[in-house]
Amino acid sequence: MKNNNLYNYIISIADNSLILAQRLGELCGHGPTLETDIAGTNISLDLIGQTRNYYQYAAKIQGEGKTEDDLAFLRLEREYKNVLLVEQPNDHFGFVMGRQYLFDVFHLLFMTEMLNSKDETLAAIAKKGIKEVSYHKRFSGDWVKRLGDGTEESNAKMQEAIDDLWVYTDELFDLTEADKAMIADGIGVDTSKLKELYYAEISELLKEANLTVPEGKYFTRGGKKGIHSEHMGYILSDLQYMQRTYPNMEW
Amino acid sequence: MKNNNLYNYIISIADNSLILAQRLGELCGHGPTLETDIAGTNISLDLIGQTRNYYQYAAKIQGEGKTEDDLAFLRLEREYKNVLLVEQPNDHFGFVMGRQYLFDVFHLLFMTEMLNSKDETLAAIAKKGIKEVSYHKRFSGDWVKRLGDGTEESNAKMQEAIDDLWVYTDELFDLTEADKAMIADGIGVDTSKLKELYYAEISELLKEANLTVPEGKYFTRGGKKGIHSEHMGYILSDLQYMQRTYPNMEW
Repeated sequence: MKNNNLYNYIISIADNSLILAQRLGELCGHGPTLETDIAGTNISLDLIGQTRNYYQYAAKIQGEGKTEDDLAFLRLEREYKNVLLVEQPNDHFGFVMGRQYLFDVFHLLFMTEMLNSKDETLAAIAKKGIKEVSYHKRFSGDWVKRLGDGTEESNAKMQEAIDDLWVYTDELFDLTEADKAMIADGIGVDTSKLKELYYAEISELLKEANLTVPEGKYFTRGGKKGIHSEHMGYILSDLQYMQRTYPNMEW
Repeated sequence: MKNNNLYNYIISIADNSLILAQRLGELCGHGPTLETDIAGTNISLDLIGQTRNYYQYAAKIQGEGKTEDDLAFLRLEREYKNVLLVEQPNDHFGFVMGRQYLFDVFHLLFMTEMLNSKDETLAAIAKKGIKEVSYHKRFSGDWVKRLGDGTEESNAKMQEAIDDLWVYTDELFDLTEADKAMIADGIGVDTSKLKELYYAEISELLKEANLTVPEGKYFTRGGKKGIHSEHMGYILSDLQYMQRTYPNMEW
């Protein structure tokens, strides 16, 4: 491969969207209300749309004649580079919205920076996706507020989700070799510079929502290096089933 | 294939054990107590042990050079012929024990008859398995009694499970073409003759357990013909993941 770092860089961005979309897809038809059900599914579809652009581009760079479907469906677990946050389960609706919000704030900051990428394809994907991601963040943030500032039970559940998911947030700002190389080339986003903004924005919303900002300094990580939680095998079992069972299938 | 009916007959017996074992396997490490956790996993292993004998025999009859693993892991959903009962989810412990008991009573009656099969291999599998299945039934029956005759909450949960699972019991006695042909040859068990015994035994235990015997006359079916519930795809995704992802893998 000519540009291994660029390939790895794109894959890691795309995998975040893919795995989060898969998690949201599990809820299709199971949302608590019709409106949230459709909204969650739409967010999932937005994210899948973004991954298509990423994977098509990555496949082209890889130059092995693979398709977006090969990259999305036929890699092994260690080859997926999504952060651990997005693979966390849909335990209850508070978790779904909490996970979404904790990712969306990062995602929008990231996309906004990616507009300035020297890589025209990535900049174009950002330009196309940024409106969608703004909407995602508004939707998930509204729910975090509504649940946090709701009943005693909804507040407790929202707080539980934020507390549990908090340990996965720091990994969003880890820089891999690919990240560093792409930042040096003016292609990649230096996420380490987004960290302060990220926690400031989230803390503000949590306070507004009557939720406590977790103070724990322990964070867990691994997904960006391909070291996933136990959940990942189950996600891939579902995600890859059709392609693995009917090789080379097309819709 | 020389003996298609015999192959189909064996597969349908084996698939019941395989899919029930997979459901129990999902709980490995998640049982409510250490003892029940280990017991559930042991039952799962007993059932898998039985399926190995069945699938080895079926593969031999099929004569296409396939192995027990090919038959267990690499068929398509429609080719699995287990009854719908065994694919029902582990909703709560009452469901796990209720499903188990409703199957075990059938399984022991079935095995006892299979001892007389003209097919020596099947008779030998029955002889070997019957002690295990007696134990399974004692274990699951004890739990149905304990929960039914326990607290108000445990009684309600056990009743809920029995009520929900009841609709899947009648399929146990359906006769497919393969069943009928094997009965005619003195190889297969005429399950239609076990039905009365089955419901009598279960009704007696339910009464003893302070549970109401469901009176509904609506039953659902399809698994024996390969028409499964939505659960089946998810079960197969997990079950087949390793073999599909790493083709021809061996432990």
